[in-house]
Amino acid sequence: MPFAKGHGTENDFLILPGPFNPDPAQVRALCDRRSGLGADGVLRVDHRDGQWFMDYRNADGSVAEMCGNGVRVFAHWLRSRGLVDTDDFTVGTRAGERRVRVHGCTLTAATVTVDMGPAEVTGVSTARLGDRYITGLGVDLGNPHLACVLPGLDAAALAGMDLPEPDYDRGFFPHGVNVEISTPLQQGQVHMRVHERGVGETRSCGTGTVAAARAALADAGLAAGTVTVHIPGGRVVVEIGGGTSTLTGPSRIIATGEVELQ
Amino acid sequence: MPFAKGHGTENDFLILPGPFNPDPAQVRALCDRRSGLGADGVLRVDHRDGQWFMDYRNADGSVAEMCGNGVRVFAHWLRSRGLVDTDDFTVGTRAGERRVRVHGCTLTAATVTVDMGPAEVTGVSTARLGDRYITGLGVDLGNPHLACVLPGLDAAALAGMDLPEPDYDRGFFPHGVNVEISTPLQQGQVHMRVHERGVGETRSCGTGTVAAARAALADAGLAAGTVTVHIPGGRVVVEIGGGTSTLTGPSRIIATGEVELQ
Repeated sequence: MPFAKGHGTENDFLILPGPFNPDPAQVRALCDRRSGLGADGVLRVDHRDGQWFMDYRNADGSVAEMCGNGVRVFAHWLRSRGLVDTDDFTVGTRAGERRVRVHGCTLTAATVTVDMGPAEVTGVSTARLGDRYITGLGVDLGNPHLACVLPGLDAAALAGMDLPEPDYDRGFFPHGVNVEISTPLQQGQVHMRVHERGVGETRSCGTGTVAAARAALADAGLAAGTVTVHIPGGRVVVEIGGGTSTLTGPSRIIATGEVELQ
Repeated sequence: MPFAKGHGTENDFLILPGPFNPDPAQVRALCDRRSGLGADGVLRVDHRDGQWFMDYRNADGSVAEMCGNGVRVFAHWLRSRGLVDTDDFTVGTRAGERRVRVHGCTLTAATVTVDMGPAEVTGVSTARLGDRYITGLGVDLGNPHLACVLPGLDAAALAGMDLPEPDYDRGFFPHGVNVEISTPLQQGQVHMRVHERGVGETRSCGTGTVAAARAALADAGLAAGTVTVHIPGGRVVVEIGGGTSTLTGPSRIIATGEVELQ
């Protein structure tokens, strides 16, 4: 079965361009980092209702609605392989259509801007990290976030911080929550780490960077603006305004080949 | 650059069949499990002095002398791709020649027997695992092992055991040690877990399975014999006798393709 491997800010994916539709056990086998090729998820290239559709699967075999980093790699695949012939197009996902724009595209690298939809503030909540209490903004991006800007935190202190599993308000977040910790906005930039619901700390979370940008702007008294978000896996740019948000970041496609199904 | 990915009992490798010789930074990039293809090590296919040579590199870019699981995958590659035309041959490694025999070889699967050399007992030593003291046999297989057979331990209790970093006798093992914990020999079988020097617990360690078989035989009053060793990554068969040892186990080659060098 043909495959490609790519990543967006070190959130890594197997692209399956063929007609083959793996079952959950085959997805788990493909994503296993020892006995398989290894990845955070699978992007199956599908075509539905006259549109390219990102059939996203988590490494555990379950389906997911959307993945902010995955859609960049998916759009890069479509554009770099000539499956679309313009830089601006839409990608179908289980969360609906996403408008994308592909910049500086080669077979292996591109920068992709994705419309992430509105970043809606749902209120203020508090979480416990070990013996420390932190307060942040609830932000909904199709999935729930608690984006916490810590006063006085800088990049070095953030990098050195313990980030245990956060204890959050289950009344406020009945379906769990992704927790972002960031530095305050400074010269249009923030540094962020993220604890993903059900996963633990990750090197990158697309919707999390948008939530963190929204919270950092709000913390600086702004409702709109452009924020460069530094994450362990790299750097993205978030723009908030006009009732929506966009996420611009890198995609890399590092290998292509044939994989044996187990 | 062409590559293949394979594993031996879930110890996974990138096979580089091309003439290209990656530098340490390139090896690290290839083995990175997020931004690269991901593996425990690289097996570069080289030809030296009229013989196929396994140029083994660790994921951190350093060179290693030998790898009991890697040599199975390497021999499988040579035989399945027609680079050798007999089932019995020798593979050059930095630790010297290794005789191998490939059984039931297809492009994706094989069983390979490797001559691992003598498993020399160096004495008896004790290690501390958390607040528990365990005693085992020092076994030298080119690298140092402390193989501990725990009386009364069964497979279920082994699987549930805490396996913290062992504290060992630095006088006895001045260069560190790999520590194996196993059940006693029962009907020719043992179950084993291993803490690899400088790595932590792994799903498989080729030399470790030989050391564990040696210790389990000794514990049963035997100097030679055949032992099936169950490890988290699968199952291998170790034969000890005639002044040497052999390790027989599976190899899988799961994918082939082209990778972009970073």
